Order: sequence, then structure tokens, then C-alpha cells
Amino acid sequence: MKVGIIGAGRIGKVHAKNISMFVPEMEIKTIADPFMNEETEAFAKRCGISNITKDANDILNDPEIEAVLICSSTDTHAKYIIEAANAGKNIFCEKPIAYDLALVHEAIDTAKKAGVKLQIGFCRRFDHNHRAVYDMVREGKVGKVNIIKISSRDPEPPSLAYVKVSGGIFYDMMIHDFDMARFLAGSEVTEVNAIGSVLVDPGIGEAGDVDTALVTLKFENGAIGVIDNSRKAVYGYDQRVEVFGSEGCAQNENDIPNTAVLSNADGKIGGTAYKVMWDRYTGAFVSEMQAFADAIANDKETPVTGIDGLYPVLMAAAATKSLHEGRPVKISEVE
Amino acid sequence: MKVGIIGAGRIGKVHAKNISMFVPEMEIKTIADPFMNEETEAFAKRCGISNITKDANDILNDPEIEAVLICSSTDTHAKYIIEAANAGKNIFCEKPIAYDLALVHEAIDTAKKAGVKLQIGFCRRFDHNHRAVYDMVREGKVGKVNIIKISSRDPEPPSLAYVKVSGGIFYDMMIHDFDMARFLAGSEVTEVNAIGSVLVDPGIGEAGDVDTALVTLKFENGAIGVIDNSRKAVYGYDQRVEVFGSEGCAQNENDIPNTAVLSNADGKIGGTAYKVMWDRYTGAFVSEMQAFADAIANDKETPVTGIDGLYPVLMAAAATKSLHEGRPVKISEVE
Amino acid sequence: MKVGIIGAGRIGKVHAKNISMFVPEMEIKTIADPFMNEETEAFAKRCGISNITKDANDILNDPEIEAVLICSSTDTHAKYIIEAANAGKNIFCEKPIAYDLALVHEAIDTAKKAGVKLQIGFCRRFDHNHRAVYDMVREGKVGKVNIIKISSRDPEPPSLAYVKVSGGIFYDMMIHDFDMARFLAGSEVTEVNAIGSVLVDPGIGEAGDVDTALVTLKFENGAIGVIDNSRKAVYGYDQRVEVFGSEGCAQNENDIPNTAVLSNADGKIGGTAYKVMWDRYTGAFVSEMQAFADAIANDKETPVTGIDGLYPVLMAAAATKSLHEGRPVKISEVE
Amino acid sequence: MKVGIIGAGRIGKVHAKNISMFVPEMEIKTIADPFMNEETEAFAKRCGISNITKDANDILNDPEIEAVLICSSTDTHAKYIIEAANAGKNIFCEKPIAYDLALVHEAIDTAKKAGVKLQIGFCRRFDHNHRAVYDMVREGKVGKVNIIKISSRDPEPPSLAYVKVSGGIFYDMMIHDFDMARFLAGSEVTEVNAIGSVLVDPGIGEAGDVDTALVTLKFENGAIGVIDNSRKAVYGYDQRVEVFGSEGCAQNENDIPNTAVLSNADGKIGGTAYKVMWDRYTGAFVSEMQAFADAIANDKETPVTGIDGLYPVLMAAAATKSLHEGRPVKISEVE
Repeated sequence: MKVGIIGAGRIGKVHAKNISMFVPEMEIKTIADPFMNEETEAFAKRCGISNITKDANDILNDPEIEAVLICSSTDTHAKYIIEAANAGKNIFCEKPIAYDLALVHEAIDTAKKAGVKLQIGFCRRFDHNHRAVYDMVREGKVGKVNIIKISSRDPEPPSLAYVKVSGGIFYDMMIHDFDMARFLAGSEVTEVNAIGSVLVDPGIGEAGDVDTALVTLKFENGAIGVIDNSRKAVYGYDQRVEVFGSEGCAQNENDIPNTAVLSNADGKIGGTAYKVMWDRYTGAFVSEMQAFADAIANDKETPVTGIDGLYPVLMAAAATKSLHEGRPVKISEVE
Repeated sequence: MKVGIIGAGRIGKVHAKNISMFVPEMEIKTIADPFMNEETEAFAKRCGISNITKDANDILNDPEIEAVLICSSTDTHAKYIIEAANAGKNIFCEKPIAYDLALVHEAIDTAKKAGVKLQIGFCRRFDHNHRAVYDMVREGKVGKVNIIKISSRDPEPPSLAYVKVSGGIFYDMMIHDFDMARFLAGSEVTEVNAIGSVLVDPGIGEAGDVDTALVTLKFENGAIGVIDNSRKAVYGYDQRVEVFGSEGCAQNENDIPNTAVLSNADGKIGGTAYKVMWDRYTGAFVSEMQAFADAIANDKETPVTGIDGLYPVLMAAAATKSLHEGRPVKISEVE
Repeated sequence: MKVGIIGAGRIGKVHAKNISMFVPEMEIKTIADPFMNEETEAFAKRCGISNITKDANDILNDPEIEAVLICSSTDTHAKYIIEAANAGKNIFCEKPIAYDLALVHEAIDTAKKAGVKLQIGFCRRFDHNHRAVYDMVREGKVGKVNIIKISSRDPEPPSLAYVKVSGGIFYDMMIHDFDMARFLAGSEVTEVNAIGSVLVDPGIGEAGDVDTALVTLKFENGAIGVIDNSRKAVYGYDQRVEVFGSEGCAQNENDIPNTAVLSNADGKIGGTAYKVMWDRYTGAFVSEMQAFADAIANDKETPVTGIDGLYPVLMAAAATKSLHEGRPVKISEVE
Repeated sequence: MKVGIIGAGRIGKVHAKNISMFVPEMEIKTIADPFMNEETEAFAKRCGISNITKDANDILNDPEIEAVLICSSTDTHAKYIIEAANAGKNIFCEKPIAYDLALVHEAIDTAKKAGVKLQIGFCRRFDHNHRAVYDMVREGKVGKVNIIKISSRDPEPPSLAYVKVSGGIFYDMMIHDFDMARFLAGSEVTEVNAIGSVLVDPGIGEAGDVDTALVTLKFENGAIGVIDNSRKAVYGYDQRVEVFGSEGCAQNENDIPNTAVLSNADGKIGGTAYKVMWDRYTGAFVSEMQAFADAIANDKETPVTGIDGLYPVLMAAAATKSLHEGRPVKISEVE
């Protein structure tokens, strides 16, 4: 199966490298980026990619290419989904599809009508620790799900310049956790209530955002949940989930680079967590691409559908509204 | 220092036993219970208590007795605080003081005017694991507090008969966590938002209560927090706190009876948590009584004051209102 | 059941206090110590002990007393066992019975002939963590035992004065681990090989002892094992066991005062271990006395018999010989 | 830097793949294997290797090739080291160099005289968990090293056919741990004492080997240590090290695929360990090759020298002798 990659930035390169070594079903025929440079060309050759171009159409118009990876900037995601769908290509698109709900719907609908696969890049669903909790829940080991708790904290806030265009903490950061909540619960969220505070950097507050947030969730099936986010954890990435149910509680501990501990006169001391996202989720990026290849090769539903791309955006919209209005907001209010 | 105990039920007996062995500054002169029976008398003798009576006045009117432990039923707490205060005795009273806020205020005010010590039995403040997190926070090890998370789950729901008179999950169960939240934050809660569900026992719903609840908290200092409660955790008592701040995160793991684990073909298996509250908080009951004795002997402020007894009741009132009205409620609305 | 305690030093007091509160079947009638003083008398009264004496014969000759606790200095253990047995009293004796093997045998034989219960104070068998591993092994959860590993490290070496009369690290410290090894294996040790080094304090070497030691064990049933000891661990008491078998591995982690951990820029930091033996084994002392009371009350074999007192002494003798001769030594060589 | 790989079996392929993706300084020009087949050719092409041959001389005689990886069967290691050294090529050789000590010395000496780099494939030195303990020790965090403990257990014994030609458990399995012991101690072993048992499979005993073994170590600097090995752990690979010293204890926990745990009515249950060696040491194989490339590129000493290849073989010889003769054996006896 020949694939093309649109966008050769950081994430595009990660996918290219992973496909070349860990996804034998796929062969990257072309990589396109308007800012293609020598370094990227050298990288592409190393990955065995023969066609290097600045024009995404070289991929979209190539009848040999069966699948497209959209790794370009967020504002182009929906456009490329629509064009790739119309060209009959299966699509892997980084999250989010778009911030504009009409555009999200159009992209999803176009892919659906074209009968192509669409997978959204919610990579955390493929993380070894989160997946293991998910498996416990799906196998019925916690019984009926009652409470879901998700913690997600970043080592450092992004630049203020980025914060201003990011759409806010709910669209930019918590969107992963909104996806995780639905994924773990196996039920749709009906209402959210958000509280937030500016505790990390006053500049984030001046940009109209919060840097610390808690969102409670009500699920259709009666379960309740809560997500907490902070833009800055001095000890590194902190990503944990907990699913408490009628028969037990599945939870994971934060991922750490090694298990060594030192016991001395000051106590028992283990290492810090990951400080770099790419180190933290190395395996998840590989697994999501293997799953995409598998969905195409074996004509299965992709494990993260277009609808899975839509709902977290709805939740982010509702959470943003809740924060601003100081009241719980139903998902139906923002649909 | 001679003390008297009003109420010889389960908790009165725990205090009696602990004082007799672990609080050498105190001598229990009298224990009073209207339902005094032979078994309790035998127990009292074993603890070296000479006076056994059915009449609490034998304690309140005894000029030799310096301190009173109020371990009777909740509806008598405020009355005995007022009487003991008027009799000039230092007071340890089990939580809560009362559900009626006017009565709570009257009890606190009377003790204040009488110039006697008043300590409320929020024993979890003295638990080894919670105290260790508290110490880390107070020593500045997490920096400025940003997020507080508290999990508290019981092994089994109480009887439906009890649920009906308990005042509801916020007054009866989460009240300990409300206290813990204030204790850890070192700041007052200004607003709560409660969501809840009936997921454990439909009978609890029919009694007008929920059995699973999440309450978010806003603190005066900008911090935010969340408490989750469930009436039933199949693996036993689950009590954990987490304080996340600008310089780190202090958290404890659930308390377990032993550290043994078995690695076999099915995985790595440790034991279940405590199933009996008295086993879980053995040390906490001893420590709170030692602290009470210390406050009297050395004329210090008690570590859990009357005001500390008031605020959790306010929070429970606000959470109850929030749950019923489906909106965030400020503490000032219920004061 | 009335009991007498011979020896009112630290360990005698611990047993007295524990019996008075946690062993309702027993009543301490008399405590005897040649160095009885006012402080000890006050303590005894607090425990409800009426007879306080300097003469152990007041216990041995008292027909009302059914059981004797021998908590005097090691050199008197065998003598009092013999006298108490001849007086027909059940006996709890602190370890070791004696260093002289003939004396050990005489004591055991006398108790046997007299038909009285004899329990030796190997308290670690009753420790919550070690017992949990033992239970896993006995319930067959590790299958056939293949390897036993025991770590035992003290916070500080004893005084050099004590080291000189202690009999050496194998008699004084590793004797607990020799007992634990037999206890866990359910099989007798047939050969030991000891290596040791002076790494903590040169004074210990000058006194003819080592302060760091490793002893390998061969068991009758084919299992093999190893014990490591150090006189000084800066992080506190470190006591862990591991039993590896055909169906799994049971192990415990070291016991710590609380579960709180701090994650900060330096890593993840938990507290130090216990620094005081009495804090580390609080529950074990209670449990062993309850087991002794139970053995008498229900006419059962004691859980640590005279033979259990003999074998660790044999192992210590063999380990000492092995260290000196630089070769493996069979237990049969020292019997 | 152009490299050649001699031997395209499992380990040769792992190195080929790792170099192609993770070692940008190296380019694999040629891979040689007498049993070269279509599947291997396809694999090689995927890795971007142009020359595929059955004749190792195509590598040894190629003046463009700077470094050779010897991944062929053990009996050819020394021969290829000698030939590659004489051809002036830097050498990475899988362990062990040889079982015959004269041959080991000849190989090391030839490489030394030729002035080429020689690195032996003791991959565990590069494992994330073991390396983290090593770093703690080297940074002085445990102070002076007193005790070293190493556990190493495999999920399944190798086939009996293999056992018969393996050289025995000390040469085949514990050799990794002998290397680890020296690596962690920073001191040479002077004496070993081995005990062993046939507890896993009687066939192993019939083949003249043991399947369960404990070896104690004396180090030149006074430290002591112990290694335990079992051919079968039902819960998967179990590899842990512990270094106890004057200022603390560095240890790691076994590596597990994920951190998820399930708390239910049966206890707290985590997943099993790795069952496949290649999964357990994925990162270590990458790191050792990066270190080899770095040693050549920057003209540094390799991190695992020829001497590091020699000593574990000496220790295996001494342990074998000790097991057979039932006595401690000095390394000097087998040199």
C-alpha cells in the first residue's frame, strides 16, 4: 500500500520514520511540504521515500497512492480531508479536524460519502498504559463504570504567542483528555462544568485563557468524571487515568523513564517523569499507524473515527462556554 | 488531668482504650451512657475507669473533671458542648457539631465565651499518610498550591435506614473530605459545584440521596480542587489525597495492610485494602487524642477548632444545594 | 489465665503493655526484676499488674500462675526455662535460648518432659509483611519453593562493647533470618556458606566480627537461599523476603511509616524507613503474644517451638565456622 | 562510516534494523551469512543494505568498511575478531568471545596490537533500568559499595539440545550477571562460591547442568555480592539489581510492559513481565550500537572492552569449578 504524507514538520517526520521501520504494509511514496528543505530531503531519503515535493497535489492526484497522512497545520486539515476524500484516498488526519463545527461536519460527511477510511490522530488511545486500562474496562474487569478521573499536566506551557492562537486550554490541551474520557467510558458526555484559574503564568490570563483547569463530566450512562489539566508540572509529563466501577478500579501510574530508586538518609528517590512529549508517546505513534494500516488492509473501521474527532471539539466548546458563563453546559447547547 | 466520656458506643470505647494506653497525661474518671450495660462496664473496668454511670451530669457536674469527650449521638453534640462549656470544661466533640447552622454557631460561641478548648473529631487530619502530605505542603515542598484532589470511597454503603437520617452523602461522608480540602489548601473554599449519581443502590436514590458524587471546589487563593466519593468500593477503603503546586506534587497511595505481592502467570498481585474503618484509622484516633491532651496541658489552640467544625457543614450545605439546583453555589449563599 | 513476667527491661515492658490491652485471655499477676525501680513500678501499675517483685521465685513458686514470660538477660534464659518447666508452667522465652548447644537441648528436653508449652520469641514470624508472604507460600501460590532471599539491615551498629559479647553477627543479628529462612522454606537447612567483610566500622573487625555478611543456604528439599546482613543502612531498617517457586514469586517491600511521595524537579521522593526497631515490629509483638495465649487456651502446639529455637543456633554456629574456615559447612558438622 | 555485519540471524537483524534507523553515523554496506535466503535479502533491502553475500570475506577484504559486527555463531567469534583486527577494522562482537581462555586472550591481544576498537555485546549495561542504577553508583550516591545483589530469571529454559552445548548455566546465562556485577562494583571479583540445584527440569540435570543457581562473590575492594539465576519464572523475565553502600541503596524494579493496575475484590493486580527477550531489551540494543559508533567516531575507549569480555568467562569457569568441587574458588585458580 502506497501512502503520501502532507506536511513534513515534526509529526510528519515521526510518522514517516515509524512507517519505514514498523509498518511493513505501507510504503511512503511521496512527502509534500511547501517549506521542503535540504535537511528534510535528506531525512526523507533515509526513510526510503523517493518523491519529495512542495505540492500536496502531487499526492492527491497520484492514482497509485491509497492513503494520505495529513500532518499539515490545523487550519488546512479539513480542506485536505475533503480533497483527499474526493480523490478516493483513505485518510489519517492529525487532531483536531477544525475548530469550526460546520467544517468538521463537512469533512466527516465528505469522507463518509466517498466511502474512505478516516482516522483522527488521538495517539493517546494507543499509549501502552492507557490502552492497558482501556482493555481492563472493556473486558469488564471494573464492572459498570461509575467514576472516571483523568490527570494531564505538561512540563512547560507553550509560548504566549502560541497560547493566543491555540483556541484555549480546552481545545489545545484538554481535547486529548476529552477523547480519553469518551474512550474509557464507552458512553457519550452530556454535560460539562468547567472551572479554571491562572496560576502558572499571568500572561496566559492576559491572553484570555486559563492555565489550570478542572472539568466535570456527566455521561449518558449515569457515570460521572473529572479531568484536571495544568500547563506546568515541574516533574515532567504527568498523564494518568482511573476508571472506578462496580467491580473494581483500573488505573495507571505515570510513565517514567526507568524504575531505579535510591534509598538514602533523605528517603526513597525515583527519577523524574518524561520532559519531552515525543519520548513519552514513542510507542503510541507507532501503534496508531499500525492500526491505520490494519484498518485499510483488512477493511475494518478505523479505531478513531471522524465522529471521534467531532465529539472532543464539542466538549471543548461546551467547557469553554461553561468557564465563561460560570455554569454547567450541556453538549446539546453547542452542537 | 481527669476526663469524662459521654457516650460509650463504638467511638467512645475507642477513645477510652486509646487514652488508657497511649495518653498518659489523661485519666478517665467517669464514663456515661444511658444504655450502660454489663459488657460496657467490664470494658470500662479493664480500661481502669472507676466511675460508670448512665447520667452525663455525673461528668458535667464533677468539678474534678477538666475535659469532656462527647461521643454521643449527633443530635446531642451541640447541647453537650454548650453544657460542658458552661461547666468550664475543655471539650472534644465528635463530628459534626450539628446540621443546623444556628446551633453550630451557638455551640462554638458558647465554648469561645467560656474560654474552654474545643476540638472536633476530624480524625483524618491525624492519619499518617494524610499528615505526611500535609507536612510536605506546609513545608513548602509543592510551592504554591494549584490543584487539590481527594478520593474517598467506602467498602459498603450504610443501611438504607441510616441513609435516610444521615443528612445525605455530603453531610455524612464527604464532610471528612471537605475538612481535608481546607486542611491541605490552607485556604477557604468559596464555591462548590456538585454532580452525583445513583450507581450503587437504587434504594439510596429512592431515599433522595446519591451514592456517587464529584464536587469541584474554588479556593479563595485561586486554587481549584475536586473530591470524589463512592459508597461502595469492592476492594475496600480507598482514601487518597493529592496536592499539586508550582514546585511539585505531594500525594499518597491508599493504605494497605501489608506490602506482600505475588508475581505469577496472571500478573503481580498485592492484597486488598482495609475493609474496616477502625483498622484503617487506628493510629489517627490515638494521635488526635494525644493532640487534644497536648492542647490542654500546654494551653495551645486545638488542632481542629470549632470553626473547623463549622466550615465543612457549610460546604455540605452548599454541595447539597448545588446538586439539587444543578449549578455552582457560593459558600456565602448558605452562611 | 494468670501469667508472670521475669525481666522488666524494654522487651518485658512491651509484652506487659501488649498483654494488658490486646490479650484479654491473659492477666499479668506478677512482674519480677532484680533491678525493679519506681519508674517500672509505676509502669506496672498502669498495666494493672498487682504484684511487683525483685525475685523471680515469686512467679515460679506461685501455683496460680499458668504461664511465664522469660524476658531476662540471655544467659539466664535456659535456667529459667528449666525451672519454669519443672514448676509446670507454660513458657514464652525470648530468643536465643542459649549459645551453648547442650544447654539449649537441656532446656528443650525439660520443657518437653514436663509437658508444658514452650514458645521462642522469634517475633518476625508474626510481622504483617513477612506473614503475608508466608501465607502465600503455605497456600501453594508459589508452587514448589526454589529460591529464598532475605535482606536484613539495621540502621546503626550496636556499641562495640555489645558487639564483643554478642556472639557475633550470625548469633546476634542473622539468627532472625535463619529462623525466617526455615519458616518460609518449610524445609531444614543442611549446609551453609558464609562470606563477610568489615565495611561499616573497623572496630567491629578488631573485635573479631564482620559487619556485612552473605550466607548461602542449601535446604533438604533442594531449594537454595541467601541471606544478606549489614549492621548499618543509612535509610533505616530494611527487612525484605522473597520466595521464588515453580508457580510464582512472593515478596514483600520494606515497611515504611507512610505512603506519601513528593514529585518535584529532583524526582519522586518517598519517606525513609523506620529507624527504631520497636516502631517497625509493633504489631508483631502483639501477634506473637496472642498466638502464645491461643496455644495455651486451646491446647495447640506453639507456633515457634523449642526446636525452632534450636535450629537457628545451629545455623549460626555453622555460619561462624564457615566464615572462619572459608568453606561450606554442613549443619551436621556442628550438631 | 561504513560497516559490515557478519551473521544475519536474529541478533544480526536487530543490529541492522537499529543502525538503519537510530545510528545515523553508520551505514551498513554489506551483510554476510552463509545461510543467506530470500527473506533475509528482503529484510536487508528494507534496511537499505546494498551488498548481500554468503561470504564474510566480502566484508573483511573491503577496504571501505571501517567496522565489523560479528553476529555469527559463538564458535566463530574469536576467529573473526582475529581476522577483522588483522584487516584493521573496528570490531563489535557478540558475547562470549569464546569458552577457551587461550583463544579469548589471542583475540583480545590481536585487536590490541592492531590498534582497533573492540566492543563486546554485553547489552544489559545499556538497559535503561540497570544504567540508571549504575549512574547512581558512579555519581557516588550510594557511597562506598558494600553489597551487590543481582536477580536474573528467564521465562522458559532453552531446549535440552541447546543446554547440552551451551557450556552450562554459568557460561550461557549467568555470564550477563557476572558482567553486571563487575560493571556495578567498579572492582574485580576475586573469589566465587556456587551452589545449584535441578528444580525446573530433570532433563537439565541429566545433561550435567543445574537450572537454579546462587553464586556469591568477593570483590577486591572488600564488597560482597550474590547472583541468583533460574531458568524458568512463570511471570516472565525478571531482572533486578541492587547496590547497597555506605550512603544508600540503589535498586531497580523489574521492567514491565505497562503501569496499569486493577484493584478488585481479590487485591491489586498489575500485568506480567516481558516474556520475550527482544521486547525486554529493545532500547539496550540501540544504545550499545550508538555507543560503539560514538567510540569510533570520537576515538574513545569502547564501553565494553575485550577485557570486559574476558572476566565474565573467568568467573563462569570459577563458578563451574566451585559447583563441581563444593568449595569457594578463586579467580586466580582458573586464569
